[in-house]
Amino acid sequence: MNTHVSAPRHLESYLSGVWQRGAKDGKALLNASTGDPVAFIDASGLDLATALEWGRQVGGANLRKHSFHERALMLKALAQALMDLKEEFYQESFATGATRKDSWIDIEGGIGTLFAYSSKARRELPNTRVLTDGDVEPLSRDNSFSAQHILSPLHGVAVHINAYNFPCWGMLEKIAPSLIAGVPCLVKPASQTAYLTELMVRRILETGILPDGALQLLAGSAGDLLDHLTEQDILTFTGSASTGQMLKQHKTVVQNSVRFTMEADSLNASVLGTDAAPGTPEFDLFVKEVAREMTVKAGQKCTAIRRVIVPSAFHEAVIDALRSRLGKTVLGDPAREETRMGPLASLDQRDEVLARISDLCEDAEIVAGHPDRIDVGFGDAEKGAFLNPVLLSCSNPKSAQAVHDVEAFGPVATVMSYDTLEDAVDLAQRGKGSLVASLFTNDRRVAEEIVLGMAPYHGRVLIGNRTSAKTSTGHGSPLPNLVHGGPGRAGGGEELGGMRGVKHYMQRTAVQGAPELLSAVTGRWISGAQGQDAGVHPFRKSLAELKIGDQLISNAREITLKDIEHFAEFTGDTFYAHMDEASARANPFFEGRVAHGYLIVSFAAGLFVDPAPGPVLANYGVDNLRFLTPVNPGDSLKVQLTCKEINERINADYGEVRWDAVVTNQDDEIVAQYDVLTMVAKTWPLAMAAE
Amino acid sequence: MNTHVSAPRHLESYLSGVWQRGAKDGKALLNASTGDPVAFIDASGLDLATALEWGRQVGGANLRKHSFHERALMLKALAQALMDLKEEFYQESFATGATRKDSWIDIEGGIGTLFAYSSKARRELPNTRVLTDGDVEPLSRDNSFSAQHILSPLHGVAVHINAYNFPCWGMLEKIAPSLIAGVPCLVKPASQTAYLTELMVRRILETGILPDGALQLLAGSAGDLLDHLTEQDILTFTGSASTGQMLKQHKTVVQNSVRFTMEADSLNASVLGTDAAPGTPEFDLFVKEVAREMTVKAGQKCTAIRRVIVPSAFHEAVIDALRSRLGKTVLGDPAREETRMGPLASLDQRDEVLARISDLCEDAEIVAGHPDRIDVGFGDAEKGAFLNPVLLSCSNPKSAQAVHDVEAFGPVATVMSYDTLEDAVDLAQRGKGSLVASLFTNDRRVAEEIVLGMAPYHGRVLIGNRTSAKTSTGHGSPLPNLVHGGPGRAGGGEELGGMRGVKHYMQRTAVQGAPELLSAVTGRWISGAQGQDAGVHPFRKSLAELKIGDQLISNAREITLKDIEHFAEFTGDTFYAHMDEASARANPFFEGRVAHGYLIVSFAAGLFVDPAPGPVLANYGVDNLRFLTPVNPGDSLKVQLTCKEINERINADYGEVRWDAVVTNQDDEIVAQYDVLTMVAKTWPLAMAAE
Repeated sequence: MNTHVSAPRHLESYLSGVWQRGAKDGKALLNASTGDPVAFIDASGLDLATALEWGRQVGGANLRKHSFHERALMLKALAQALMDLKEEFYQESFATGATRKDSWIDIEGGIGTLFAYSSKARRELPNTRVLTDGDVEPLSRDNSFSAQHILSPLHGVAVHINAYNFPCWGMLEKIAPSLIAGVPCLVKPASQTAYLTELMVRRILETGILPDGALQLLAGSAGDLLDHLTEQDILTFTGSASTGQMLKQHKTVVQNSVRFTMEADSLNASVLGTDAAPGTPEFDLFVKEVAREMTVKAGQKCTAIRRVIVPSAFHEAVIDALRSRLGKTVLGDPAREETRMGPLASLDQRDEVLARISDLCEDAEIVAGHPDRIDVGFGDAEKGAFLNPVLLSCSNPKSAQAVHDVEAFGPVATVMSYDTLEDAVDLAQRGKGSLVASLFTNDRRVAEEIVLGMAPYHGRVLIGNRTSAKTSTGHGSPLPNLVHGGPGRAGGGEELGGMRGVKHYMQRTAVQGAPELLSAVTGRWISGAQGQDAGVHPFRKSLAELKIGDQLISNAREITLKDIEHFAEFTGDTFYAHMDEASARANPFFEGRVAHGYLIVSFAAGLFVDPAPGPVLANYGVDNLRFLTPVNPGDSLKVQLTCKEINERINADYGEVRWDAVVTNQDDEIVAQYDVLTMVAKTWPLAMAAE
Repeated sequence: MNTHVSAPRHLESYLSGVWQRGAKDGKALLNASTGDPVAFIDASGLDLATALEWGRQVGGANLRKHSFHERALMLKALAQALMDLKEEFYQESFATGATRKDSWIDIEGGIGTLFAYSSKARRELPNTRVLTDGDVEPLSRDNSFSAQHILSPLHGVAVHINAYNFPCWGMLEKIAPSLIAGVPCLVKPASQTAYLTELMVRRILETGILPDGALQLLAGSAGDLLDHLTEQDILTFTGSASTGQMLKQHKTVVQNSVRFTMEADSLNASVLGTDAAPGTPEFDLFVKEVAREMTVKAGQKCTAIRRVIVPSAFHEAVIDALRSRLGKTVLGDPAREETRMGPLASLDQRDEVLARISDLCEDAEIVAGHPDRIDVGFGDAEKGAFLNPVLLSCSNPKSAQAVHDVEAFGPVATVMSYDTLEDAVDLAQRGKGSLVASLFTNDRRVAEEIVLGMAPYHGRVLIGNRTSAKTSTGHGSPLPNLVHGGPGRAGGGEELGGMRGVKHYMQRTAVQGAPELLSAVTGRWISGAQGQDAGVHPFRKSLAELKIGDQLISNAREITLKDIEHFAEFTGDTFYAHMDEASARANPFFEGRVAHGYLIVSFAAGLFVDPAPGPVLANYGVDNLRFLTPVNPGDSLKVQLTCKEINERINADYGEVRWDAVVTNQDDEIVAQYDVLTMVAKTWPLAMAAE
């Protein structure tokens, strides 16, 4: 009951602001289950040089006009709009061979990535157009020369060449960080499932949320696209290593040092801990996870488990448990609710997987499943690209080659065993770089040894145990806040990882100069720059009035022994360094009784706070507080408070203001230094809806 | 009076723990000033596959045994030892054509990089073997599943292929971050000046400071070196774009996704601001800097200024000033004190520069210097590779091609002019990616517009003005704490940048799992993990006794209105939200009078501090303090304090302990959350030398 029965359509590309078809009729894309044509795809004759330039000029300029938060809000609106339309995508997705559950990862997982990037960007990035990166680097003793690294959006187009297995997520997880960064995208999906990507791009553009030029689609062959890339463009690729390596070596990509990242399939391992014997929760979780990874998307995931590494003693028990579990996997039409696993993406793909299984048989024997005997619950085993899960067992994994080198991109995995933890790590490393590995253990020592051993070879490592059984997101799921990619065979790339992924689309630049001019460039007050007398107390200024560098220098206040004793008694903090002269002297850091750090910052607040109601609404925190010189009774303290950073919130009546606080003593030594974080009203009096 | 008159020697390579010569006599390397042979170089027949494997097995294991601080201390010891030997390097360096001032950058600048990395690593990295990267990412609401990114040293060798112009610095600036990361190095210097690198490597190895396998030297051709690289190795290259591109496309590098970074020459620009008219300090600084960049190392620096971009109105004034300044550059034997500029590295190199000057003449005319008439103060104009500075002027820089594309790697630069700030940015961008640009201005608006416009095309931008005139490190100097590298033509690489450079030699891995197991892997307590009752108050434990996860849960304390009023009066912080019920209610964040944030943390300290003298010596700071729920009079607070991170200092009687502090109210809502930073004695009672 495959519901996608409409006549095949001709896919279009969206380039230079126009939906357009290639010059030829193009290739037919077939329904994975029925073999019926779903769509035709062709991009011959399309002007890709102009499209890239349109993206750079129009899209880049349009996106860079906005701040990080504004672009993040676009993604949120887009995610909401796509969520409302999700049923249409689910229907279209059946043709790819995906069950509804499979499609959930692709469609809602993809939309979820937009949501996640939107909220994370607004939480973690300032509402500016340029980011600062790392701390100010003082380059002179007298504070006349410093440096600040900044990150600014590249002035090119991000060209995303995606794989067929995730037509929605594959696009969305890449455009999310690109767009937040302020870099327009040109998406080229793999042909096989491009109809679903094309549908989603249509819906995205129909919302009108993205500015002109921010998103283009190339449905069909890449043609001469790469010939036109410049040093400001970015090229990302997800798919087979051979294609990726071809792109990486493309003449223009090399000559112009086009930023390139690649995420290729890999021979991901899952390791069962020595503690996780049959009967333990970890054993059951492991078996469940391996079976799940083999069957979700019919194993067509670059993160799927290919190598099942188990203690020798549990080898047979693991095979028995997997055989039994895999035997229950009902294969069939993905649109039917009873179906547990759909077909592969195409008959060609199935032929490819069958060939790889026979390669694996050099080193391993099949212990579950019959590649040559297809058992379909619902559907046509002739026309559909069906294949039941195939489990292999390798008895000599240390000398075997194929099981560590050959990837069968389907419902296929090989069980192999180890004796010591070192062996287990060694086997995992033989994958020569993978996207992800997992380990099932409830033993801290096993976790430490195996995870640290595998880490240099992996972009992600998941530990499964009883505690996280219900909440774990699983071996196979890249998450927006975690890096995705791996060394070596996995392509050597890195994407996602929260705001790390955004920075891949930006240029890092060390800017050096006098703090005054650095402040002008970064929009952030830099220590050493002149502060200006705000005229009034800076706490009396709303966001509309406040300026970077507005400064208050407080009166001085003496800290007496009585103050220290009183504070100790009041708070209960009677630490000896405050209370006992002899013991304080014995301490290597003090020359006698000292004031509490908390007393210093409390007095400092007393010195800089303006008490009357005003635009400063609250102190919501303190960052990087350091006590640099001990304060002894009789010392006299004053504070210099300077407006360092203003972060105006969209959709709120206030914004965040970061103040640089420096407390000095009578000898101008810095006693304490910190950032005071406040919420400040945009205007004052506050125009508020609620009281 | 060139002091290097010893007989030419045969350079050796240090591979697999043995100094060894190639099978042939090899190529003669000639003194740049006299043409006399300095050394012979050859690496034919050397077993590079074994050397790489020795580095990986022996060097990698030896380095990874140590912590970041231990490796940093090795660098410090090495820097001290090399500093003591510096005169020998200075003497050897004259043969390369470098004056003593030129050599200072190479020799002491290089040794300074070791010092800088050593101290920065000990200041900014924990004393561990694995780094955590970024915050813990909670992945479940109930804290049963989280993630932490970690960075671990790659298990390969860092192969550094260096340029001829900085035989010492070029090596040291790359081995410093590699060794801190825990990755062994194999250095292959450019042949032309390899005798100086070889000498320094000999001295380094003689100190015995580095463990076996940490440093190897290949003096001579790279042979089949690249064929043996694996996915765990790193390849870095500094030199010409053409060679770099060849390495980048090497079959093994591509197939194994060998991490590759490249730093190529570029057409660096220096821009004079519209405000910096003749007569201003900025004009003079600009002229001085351009002349300096043209003549230091005879312009053989990848960061040298090649394009001099000035306001049209000042075009002639700039040329006049430069002509006059350059005219005073005494050319000659670099060993003579009167010499201001030495020869190029070789006669071949001079031929190359002359050819490029004639390319530039397509777009520009020579306005100072005579490439065909060499004027040498001290030395032999026939045998030495001398060339006086050549200044060109281009009158149509917007349509010109060569001046933006052709690099003459010698004392050569082209002056071109602009009308608007936009034009200036556009001209700078035509370099298609450079290592560095500079701007001379004292105008905030000019700085903002030009720096932000140039940033996406540059790895570093320096602003010069009167304030930083004395302290500026100058246009051409990469610094250990700032990134070095640039997009496009500059190679698309990034190195140095402080601890960023260390991370280039490490693999980032997202580790997911139950907080308990994540703590075991990272050696850092992760929120959500069980804490353990320490038996005694954790402040009574020395570093030798304290364990990650040791936890104290305090008694509860009520905050009364009287406390708030008393604290306000005592500290002077009478902010209305604490003092005035009606105004507090009007505030969007509060429902009535609230306790001061500083009162909350002061009371918290009173609840968790153990007063008697003990191993906890001082609270030196607080990080990431956030007030999450307002505290109203009558609320009852308690604190959970957990030992989160232990950072034992080498060469000190104490270390740093980071405590996770969570203050909750009677409803178990989190009121405040922060890290408390303390110094804790290694043993107690403290065994102290001084009182």
